[in-house]
Amino acid sequence: MQAHIITIGDEILIGQVIDTNSAWMAQQLNKIGVSVGQITSITDSPEHLVDVLTKSLKTYPITLITGGLGPTNDDRTKQTLAKYFNSELVLHQPTLNQIKKLLNARNLPLNNNNLSQAMQPEKATILNNTMGTAPGMKFETDGKVVFSMPGVPFEMKYLMSEYIIPELSEKYKLSPIINRTILTHGEAEAVLAEKLQTWESQLPNYISLAYLPSPNMVRLRLSAPGNASTNIANEIEAAITKLYSIIPDIIYGEEEETMQNIVGKFCFDNNFTISTAESCTGGSIASIITSIPGASNYFLGSIVAYSNNVKVNLLKVSPETLQNKGAVSEEVVKQMVIGACNATNSDFAIATSGIAGPDGGTDEKPVGTTWIAVGNKLSQEAQCFCFGSNRERNIIRASASALNMMRIFIKKAIENNK
Amino acid sequence: MQAHIITIGDEILIGQVIDTNSAWMAQQLNKIGVSVGQITSITDSPEHLVDVLTKSLKTYPITLITGGLGPTNDDRTKQTLAKYFNSELVLHQPTLNQIKKLLNARNLPLNNNNLSQAMQPEKATILNNTMGTAPGMKFETDGKVVFSMPGVPFEMKYLMSEYIIPELSEKYKLSPIINRTILTHGEAEAVLAEKLQTWESQLPNYISLAYLPSPNMVRLRLSAPGNASTNIANEIEAAITKLYSIIPDIIYGEEEETMQNIVGKFCFDNNFTISTAESCTGGSIASIITSIPGASNYFLGSIVAYSNNVKVNLLKVSPETLQNKGAVSEEVVKQMVIGACNATNSDFAIATSGIAGPDGGTDEKPVGTTWIAVGNKLSQEAQCFCFGSNRERNIIRASASALNMMRIFIKKAIENNK
Repeated sequence: MQAHIITIGDEILIGQVIDTNSAWMAQQLNKIGVSVGQITSITDSPEHLVDVLTKSLKTYPITLITGGLGPTNDDRTKQTLAKYFNSELVLHQPTLNQIKKLLNARNLPLNNNNLSQAMQPEKATILNNTMGTAPGMKFETDGKVVFSMPGVPFEMKYLMSEYIIPELSEKYKLSPIINRTILTHGEAEAVLAEKLQTWESQLPNYISLAYLPSPNMVRLRLSAPGNASTNIANEIEAAITKLYSIIPDIIYGEEEETMQNIVGKFCFDNNFTISTAESCTGGSIASIITSIPGASNYFLGSIVAYSNNVKVNLLKVSPETLQNKGAVSEEVVKQMVIGACNATNSDFAIATSGIAGPDGGTDEKPVGTTWIAVGNKLSQEAQCFCFGSNRERNIIRASASALNMMRIFIKKAIENNK
Repeated sequence: MQAHIITIGDEILIGQVIDTNSAWMAQQLNKIGVSVGQITSITDSPEHLVDVLTKSLKTYPITLITGGLGPTNDDRTKQTLAKYFNSELVLHQPTLNQIKKLLNARNLPLNNNNLSQAMQPEKATILNNTMGTAPGMKFETDGKVVFSMPGVPFEMKYLMSEYIIPELSEKYKLSPIINRTILTHGEAEAVLAEKLQTWESQLPNYISLAYLPSPNMVRLRLSAPGNASTNIANEIEAAITKLYSIIPDIIYGEEEETMQNIVGKFCFDNNFTISTAESCTGGSIASIITSIPGASNYFLGSIVAYSNNVKVNLLKVSPETLQNKGAVSEEVVKQMVIGACNATNSDFAIATSGIAGPDGGTDEKPVGTTWIAVGNKLSQEAQCFCFGSNRERNIIRASASALNMMRIFIKKAIENNK
């Protein structure tokens, strides 16, 4: 069962507003077994809507429209749909009552704009919107259904949750889709694809696989029609189990997990504390860790040591090491780990030192060269990475790699303690 | 001149990824006089692309496609476009060289997936992508132009800025639109709109004004058809001059400027150094400052003092003050400024301490309460803010407010030195 989402409004087409509604709607629809076949953002023009809607009704059993229901002149969705479905606009008393109620609460008088908002197409089923002045509408034609909603996110979400999702799942008795996402870090998409070639070729043909790369990870998504109680769920589970056996070190989590959540949970559950000593990442790792609510339970602090003086004074890095090995070196990041543990009194620490760019590279250490160490006062593990020439990406990738190294180090510490 | 943006990828249609590319692309296109007529997000299916592209070529002179250029089996845009435009895939040596270069930098071997990425449609003009392994492509047919780019945002941005925007503005000799953006911080949209009511009503009718609010600022965009040499440019300039006289304290910059750029430039030009002492912002301010290339010229470091021990040991905050006034207090943030200046030996410092949430609030200091101080060893200015209940937004708003306070403090210091 496929749906088409049509979003109406010039603000999306001029780039003023990012369309976040569609992603939310797609997630909700997927849960009840409706997949989204297309999302189309169009102008406020009635002709444009008629054109796209005509095509949608030929292809999709379900069309969901958002936007263009406001009280001003540039909002013409209701008029256009009424005409399209040969429907007169008539006064809809429950909508007028709702508008009056909202205006009363704000001590505002009823004006002509409001009155025209209470006029609704007679052939539509009106979906009462307690969150705003414009109700939703449902039209049915030749077994196809078209819903229209305001584009204001919380009004759209109300109408979706209250009417549309329950109605669709009742009407179509849909078979849901299982989506499982496995998170990997440390291998490029192409390398991963090669490692997983045989495994992928052995997947049953009703399980589809997608590689979703981003700068610091590749997500693997397995999808199939079915629900948690069917055999397909077991098949997907078996495929994932096999996947873990092929790339155990590369998988760091599943679904919506993040490195910072996983590291945070390890620390919280084991009463560990952590800190960071950051040079090239400039506080980025600390800010990622502290983006998690409750981070103050295990994160003690960070020393962002951008200048060598700060490395020496606060992290007690040896000036001789800095002189002989350079700030971007294994020895320095290991000393930074010890220094951060001592300065903040934390159990573990992460340290980074690299050339983020665009300047500062040398032949021996080009832009992107980054040393990362993790560990505690007694033991540190360090690794050198060669990222690229883009400063922003180097910081993102260094932060993710450092968090991943910390994750692995703490995981081992927990296992060794058992 | 109208363009159609087609984004390819199941991840958008299942709601896993929000399409932020299209808004950015629309903004860039608008600047050169190209409006976006439609944005269509489609599946990875070749038939779907063929269907939408065929319709696009009937309506739009420009079609911009993103996504589906990865090395894995679910990425089929290149193959589909090659077939659509009756074009063989042939080895494109510059692309192969670029892939080898990227792999070499990461010490990775060349595999079959990479090799197939170097095969490109012979009839396409290949747009070299120094940011990744998949180049862009340009096809021309019947006076229409079709561009295809990777969906990875910074790769798309590179190809747009480097090739597509310059080519489109050259090819179509478009009548440009003047866009001027004034950046404000510190007033909500509704309050600002009220203050600017008279000014707005006096704008010539060919100058349009848009309020573009985001969590930490409101941008005011003035647009009119014309170019820098016309009288309209002067009229816009006059309106902006008047705007400065109405809200001098609220405007912090123009166009693409950022607080961190402005603070960085002040420091660089005057040989000042800065540091931060962050509690609730958790390293976010340091990471914003160090996102700017060359920040190491003026940014010395940061102490992220999440625990009170770190505040006492590294920032020399008085334990009595912490005890009597609490960590979230004027006295503590002022001491943190002095502590950061001493610990890093910087001229100026920024300090934050607040309750980011969602927990930790009290009746007296609810979630969102944030003390911020800026200054030097001799003099500090502090301010208390009441942000909201959302942790992420509180951190963003505290960081922006802190940078703005630092901007104003340093600006005054420069003026007093003159």
